[in-house]
Amino acid sequence: MGRYVYFFAKNKAEGSAKMRDILGGKGANLAEMANLGIPVPPGFTISTEVCVYYTKMRKYPEGLMEEIEENLNRVEKETGKKFGNPENPLLVSVRSGARISMPGMMDTVLNIGLNEITVKGLIKQTENERFAYDAYRRLIQMFGNVVLGIDGRKFEEIIEEKKKEKGVKDDVDLEVKDLEELLEEFKILIKKEKHREFPEDPYEQLNMARDAVFASWNNKRAINYRRIHKISDDWGTAVNVQTMVFGNMGNDSGTGVGFTRNPSTGEKTLYGEYLLNAQGEDVVAGIRTPKPLFELKKEMPEVYEELSEITQRLERHYRDVQDFEFTIEKGKLYFLQTRTGKRTAQAAVKIACDMVKEGLITREEALMRIEPAQLDQLLHRRIDPRARVEVLARGLPASPGAATGIIVFTPDRAVELANDGKKVILVRQETSPEDIHGMAVAQAILTSRGGMTSHAAVVARGMGKCCVAGCEEIKVEEKNKRLIVKGLILREGDFITLDGSTGRVMKGKVPTIEPQLSGSFEELMRWADGIRTMGVRANADTPKDARVARQMGAEGIGLCRTEHMFFGEDRLPFVQKMIMAKNLEERREAVKKLEPMQKEDFKKIFGEMEGFPVIIRLLDPPLHEFLPKYEDLLLEINKLRFEKAKEKEIEEKEKILRRVVDLREMNPMLGHRGCRLGITFPEIYDMQVKAVFEAATELIKEGKKVYPEIMIPLVATKEELSILRERIIKIAEEIMKREKVTFEYKIGTMIELPRAALCADKIAQEADFFSFGTNDLTQTTFGFSRDDAEGKFIPLYTERKILREDPFQVLDQEGVGELVKIGTQRGRRVKKDLEVGICGEHGGEPSSVKFCHRVGMDYVSCSPYRVPIARLAAAQAKLEEKR
Amino acid sequence: MGRYVYFFAKNKAEGSAKMRDILGGKGANLAEMANLGIPVPPGFTISTEVCVYYTKMRKYPEGLMEEIEENLNRVEKETGKKFGNPENPLLVSVRSGARISMPGMMDTVLNIGLNEITVKGLIKQTENERFAYDAYRRLIQMFGNVVLGIDGRKFEEIIEEKKKEKGVKDDVDLEVKDLEELLEEFKILIKKEKHREFPEDPYEQLNMARDAVFASWNNKRAINYRRIHKISDDWGTAVNVQTMVFGNMGNDSGTGVGFTRNPSTGEKTLYGEYLLNAQGEDVVAGIRTPKPLFELKKEMPEVYEELSEITQRLERHYRDVQDFEFTIEKGKLYFLQTRTGKRTAQAAVKIACDMVKEGLITREEALMRIEPAQLDQLLHRRIDPRARVEVLARGLPASPGAATGIIVFTPDRAVELANDGKKVILVRQETSPEDIHGMAVAQAILTSRGGMTSHAAVVARGMGKCCVAGCEEIKVEEKNKRLIVKGLILREGDFITLDGSTGRVMKGKVPTIEPQLSGSFEELMRWADGIRTMGVRANADTPKDARVARQMGAEGIGLCRTEHMFFGEDRLPFVQKMIMAKNLEERREAVKKLEPMQKEDFKKIFGEMEGFPVIIRLLDPPLHEFLPKYEDLLLEINKLRFEKAKEKEIEEKEKILRRVVDLREMNPMLGHRGCRLGITFPEIYDMQVKAVFEAATELIKEGKKVYPEIMIPLVATKEELSILRERIIKIAEEIMKREKVTFEYKIGTMIELPRAALCADKIAQEADFFSFGTNDLTQTTFGFSRDDAEGKFIPLYTERKILREDPFQVLDQEGVGELVKIGTQRGRRVKKDLEVGICGEHGGEPSSVKFCHRVGMDYVSCSPYRVPIARLAAAQAKLEEKR
Repeated sequence: MGRYVYFFAKNKAEGSAKMRDILGGKGANLAEMANLGIPVPPGFTISTEVCVYYTKMRKYPEGLMEEIEENLNRVEKETGKKFGNPENPLLVSVRSGARISMPGMMDTVLNIGLNEITVKGLIKQTENERFAYDAYRRLIQMFGNVVLGIDGRKFEEIIEEKKKEKGVKDDVDLEVKDLEELLEEFKILIKKEKHREFPEDPYEQLNMARDAVFASWNNKRAINYRRIHKISDDWGTAVNVQTMVFGNMGNDSGTGVGFTRNPSTGEKTLYGEYLLNAQGEDVVAGIRTPKPLFELKKEMPEVYEELSEITQRLERHYRDVQDFEFTIEKGKLYFLQTRTGKRTAQAAVKIACDMVKEGLITREEALMRIEPAQLDQLLHRRIDPRARVEVLARGLPASPGAATGIIVFTPDRAVELANDGKKVILVRQETSPEDIHGMAVAQAILTSRGGMTSHAAVVARGMGKCCVAGCEEIKVEEKNKRLIVKGLILREGDFITLDGSTGRVMKGKVPTIEPQLSGSFEELMRWADGIRTMGVRANADTPKDARVARQMGAEGIGLCRTEHMFFGEDRLPFVQKMIMAKNLEERREAVKKLEPMQKEDFKKIFGEMEGFPVIIRLLDPPLHEFLPKYEDLLLEINKLRFEKAKEKEIEEKEKILRRVVDLREMNPMLGHRGCRLGITFPEIYDMQVKAVFEAATELIKEGKKVYPEIMIPLVATKEELSILRERIIKIAEEIMKREKVTFEYKIGTMIELPRAALCADKIAQEADFFSFGTNDLTQTTFGFSRDDAEGKFIPLYTERKILREDPFQVLDQEGVGELVKIGTQRGRRVKKDLEVGICGEHGGEPSSVKFCHRVGMDYVSCSPYRVPIARLAAAQAKLEEKR
Repeated sequence: MGRYVYFFAKNKAEGSAKMRDILGGKGANLAEMANLGIPVPPGFTISTEVCVYYTKMRKYPEGLMEEIEENLNRVEKETGKKFGNPENPLLVSVRSGARISMPGMMDTVLNIGLNEITVKGLIKQTENERFAYDAYRRLIQMFGNVVLGIDGRKFEEIIEEKKKEKGVKDDVDLEVKDLEELLEEFKILIKKEKHREFPEDPYEQLNMARDAVFASWNNKRAINYRRIHKISDDWGTAVNVQTMVFGNMGNDSGTGVGFTRNPSTGEKTLYGEYLLNAQGEDVVAGIRTPKPLFELKKEMPEVYEELSEITQRLERHYRDVQDFEFTIEKGKLYFLQTRTGKRTAQAAVKIACDMVKEGLITREEALMRIEPAQLDQLLHRRIDPRARVEVLARGLPASPGAATGIIVFTPDRAVELANDGKKVILVRQETSPEDIHGMAVAQAILTSRGGMTSHAAVVARGMGKCCVAGCEEIKVEEKNKRLIVKGLILREGDFITLDGSTGRVMKGKVPTIEPQLSGSFEELMRWADGIRTMGVRANADTPKDARVARQMGAEGIGLCRTEHMFFGEDRLPFVQKMIMAKNLEERREAVKKLEPMQKEDFKKIFGEMEGFPVIIRLLDPPLHEFLPKYEDLLLEINKLRFEKAKEKEIEEKEKILRRVVDLREMNPMLGHRGCRLGITFPEIYDMQVKAVFEAATELIKEGKKVYPEIMIPLVATKEELSILRERIIKIAEEIMKREKVTFEYKIGTMIELPRAALCADKIAQEADFFSFGTNDLTQTTFGFSRDDAEGKFIPLYTERKILREDPFQVLDQEGVGELVKIGTQRGRRVKKDLEVGICGEHGGEPSSVKFCHRVGMDYVSCSPYRVPIARLAAAQAKLEEKR
């Protein structure tokens, strides 16, 4: 260690913005501003290395004291004041400042240097006795609390007592005499609590404050904060000792905060608030309402001019929007802080685009500045931020957007009312595949159970529909057609409003705003497309989804699930017949009825996606999902028996029950589904494949370009795939021969079981493409049942940091990702040009998308509304790779 | 290709036993015997390479015909007969012979060389007209069927017709004239069916027979046989052309088969059967009863002497028991075949040991000769092979052994009757953990549902108890206390007998035999122990299991499941209280009650396993397994409601129902179990850990040696293990301090999730040992729910060869094994001396045990009765490695 202390004053700083690691964020930016010639109250920064040393050794490095004294002398020279001088005292603040901002976690002490003697000097300097005593009062109070560790409420109690005694309401109404009394009482409190005097010696004040700030690096809340935000405990904090400036020295003084551009809209105007004759804490206290910055132009035109010029300079210098703090002391402007400004998605997009046009940053930089997940905000209707809302409850923000409508409790009723032109919100305990028709017509979905990847959440996201899930505060009584929340009963027909981006459930109608995709957004997306090398497709099950997907920029469909098509009102009876069939003949009969409907489905989807590949996944869920629930049947039969219903009626139900029992599984997730169905009941897959190829044939005859790809789910062995592949090829060739057309097609497989990833070299021999189904792969790799785990232990696991993130939302790169890597490498080892993609929920999550790029995937596929997110994340991944 | 044909005759063979690949098994052994000076009828072998060439090119290689002719000349010279000679004709057989025996799959033609003219020569040679015509009749019949492809039944019909016509009963009663007529009729049949004459030319006969045998390599049943037995289609068969010898030329002729030692007991005596004046097919036909070989000693002492000498020579030469065929032609002995003899487990063990003592083979060879899985036969009671049995049905041979007892349908009743001294067999549709007490007292278990790894099967194997599972022919009516099988009704109290090694369910009492572990067995096991480097432990949950495990040679317990202890009648109420607890206080209260019981359990187990490590797995199953079933409760409440029962009673049930609903899971296998429970309800694990260490402490104070190891189930992340490890260490240290003892202990984890294997390098940092739980690992790697898959699609999958074996019985080395390898390597990468073992069912399956050795595991752990199998397999693995 060489030096420990870095001086700063206008044009004379020893540090710079690059020295964040040893000066902390605040110190580094103070130095940078000073060197830019910006008026910064002089001071110095004690480096983070001292904190590290102090924490470890419980003492300071040799020479530190001398450096501090030396720098204090420079500050005195710079300001013309002297620390502890009775005539013209120098007052300083002592503040923490870590490498990464930890707002409010560590300590600050202001007004250091005041005592019974110097306070008189301050009165002389300022000709303001009340101000000086108030400053002294604040020092003792803060010092007593922060440095000596006395409960802050005890000081407040004394002030309250005093106000009562004097018959006044506000602190500002206390007079000089009252303040002098307060000072005495504070000192008595300190004596009583800590058996010591308040240190009158300014140097002792400074040393003790410095120690307290360093020590606060290891206070409980700072440690917790670091743990949560993954900040290293080894970094330490710097300490900034800086000349006090006062915004509360009269109406030619003031304080304020601002942004160089509007952080909400991105508009290029100085934006912020200020208060005259006030200190920072007064703004925070909220007793007086701050004025918008443009009013300062009228009130103090010269200061405003300077502020405007300096902040523009700061923005140009830092090449990004700045969030700054300033104080005006008797007409003179000081900057106390500057940092990168946080902004809304809308602002981020506009600012990035504008700055490119202004030549301030490159397109690549613009792309790197947007947090992809933020884009979600732009793509959905949202609550009007000006609206007053009454929040009834909060659930999980399962699918973004906002919607208002009347409550309905059953999917059938939802369809009825929607047909009458009503906007409805479907409220259920949880949804199941049988509710799809109701979900389709609803404005939004609210469930009282289930997690971020529950059925309701997944389907709603797929539909781009607002959904609040797992809102446990609400008790849904589907039978009684009512819900109860905080003692309030809402019934069918009552209005509610949902905010799927925050999880809020609101009473009544709340105004919402349409999403507007600005020109900046379009432009940014074009830049992203120009850079990214990985394709982006969408998961889309319906023609409507496909249309949205194209609007969002999808380059094909990476996953078209066919099971949702089986739940249609016109199809379910045939599907059930197919399942209940006593023999192959009956089953074929039922399956045949479904074929023309499936063909129409595929024709429409191919039509919407003309020119792009469409991956159709053959039937995946276990058959029992299409039959009534076991316990419902059980209770129904029981009831019929007790009511002595007709034997025939009971028998009919029992027949279904027997089939349900046959098909029932202990762990349906690991059961008779996916290609296992395709192998045991080949006629179902045959029908689907025929429908796909016949749909393609008809469109090709119309002159359209169609690229069907057939995907086999849940493959664990090469043999499964080769058996099914053979059948598919046979059907394709039959149709081509009969219809005298040729069409291109591919046959591929989901990789969604650990075994498939591990044996990818074998499986690739039979596959034209791989698509990682990371939802199921996460379930099997972790041994987590999504339906169960999300409600039961995942919340606890993420809270206790056993899991960094919910692995169903953010791909677990360490475990599941390892299988994705293994699968990709082994697959490509035997088939160099194997097309590899992902179609799990993770395909729209930025960090996962970047992982997919690094693994070398050809594309990601995600819900239509996440396509822009994936496009941006893919571009960022490419840029990160270049670095 | 150089040469295609290999001659053999006594002391003059061109081939040898080593040339199995090109001569086939039969040809190679004929050559070997010939060169040993054993009387073998002269002949030659056409190599398998000719078959391969012929199959591919549809023609023979150049020069083959010349080679055949040349060799035929040598045979003529050797025998003094001439092929096709009217005076002294040579007759030959043409037989297939592949590298690996495919019994009955390919074709054979005998008596080639006979025709209208040579038959006269044969009469001259043999002075037996009837014999000669009968031989000719057999040739035409065989040739017509095998070479020309005429349905064999048509020939039989003609014979039947003839016998009816002549009024005789047996073939042998037909006279020469009748046979001549038959010949004519056969030839007419051939003409009619194939529009060609029977080939009178001996060379044409020979060539056509040769072609037919080569072609039979690719007949349907041969192809199927190869597919099933994994024999390459590319190997081809050899063709053996050999001089005919006849055992049916009078009472100085005969034929027989035998073993050099008793294949059933292993006793060292010549063992076999023979018939005088007969051919091989007469023995097979079973019309006459063959005599035991020792009678030949009286009937033909010289021949017997020669037979005895030669077979001893053969055994010494081949250094293994031989299974041989011989023919005596007019007092002269010929050997037609020799091969390694199949034998029972008992015989295999005795023979291997004896041969070592005789200096014939080494200990290593002896060990390699025993099929480890065979040992199972020795370790269990079995049906007396002499008993007459009436088989009612066949189920899966789920757990070996045999037992007789009276039927009971509920576990409670089983306990009652067992307490009365009755031997009971528990019959259930399927068993669940709640049936354990009934299973424990039963002699055997029979279920009508479930597979080889169903609950019943797994528990029964663990208990070393006979079990027949999934016997679907039986309808079990638990309510009516009866079962129905093939129209027969059996009730509680009726006797049945089960054979768990074959799956047979038999009526009434059938005598059974105790297993007797011979001295040879013990000796062999000691040799195995001397060679193997991998340890063998047992999975044992009770003191009784532990005792058996030690008897079987286990070196510790690799898996002691604690959940079975929770199902005890005296414990379940407290377990349920613990689950129903409204708060932590109540839960602690209930848990406390369990602690002394658990401590006693552990003390007893440690006591039995003194001096060896005992790995105790903390509670694993989801809590709902300890509560009544959801649907039972549902129906019960429903019933109470309809019957207008007291509200209070209903409420009580509803309270339980609510908790059951709370705990209910879609996929319990992937649910809230294992260490997830340990983390959410730490007091349960704390109690178990305390019980373990206190039990250890008490025994140590008694001067006993105890090595407790604690195993955490279902770990997916390092963090789970580190949280639990910390708690365990704390408890251990508290007890050591309080009790003033020190004990050694280890803390380790199951590796039973793909993620754990993939992240083994992280997890190993917190683990003293890994134990691969390959049951669950197979479930998650394949995405197979064992409970569902075994009944639903695994049978179809193995039948269709999608899976080579049921992966729950034989470790899937390609997929699951890959994770085992990855887990072991990554774990040891960070902790070189990490102890690694396996405790899934596979730990007792020989091929899986060998895999574990190759992966470098420290030990395998399996059910007590499989310990000897594992010991032998481990020794074999070591020997295979040395090669």
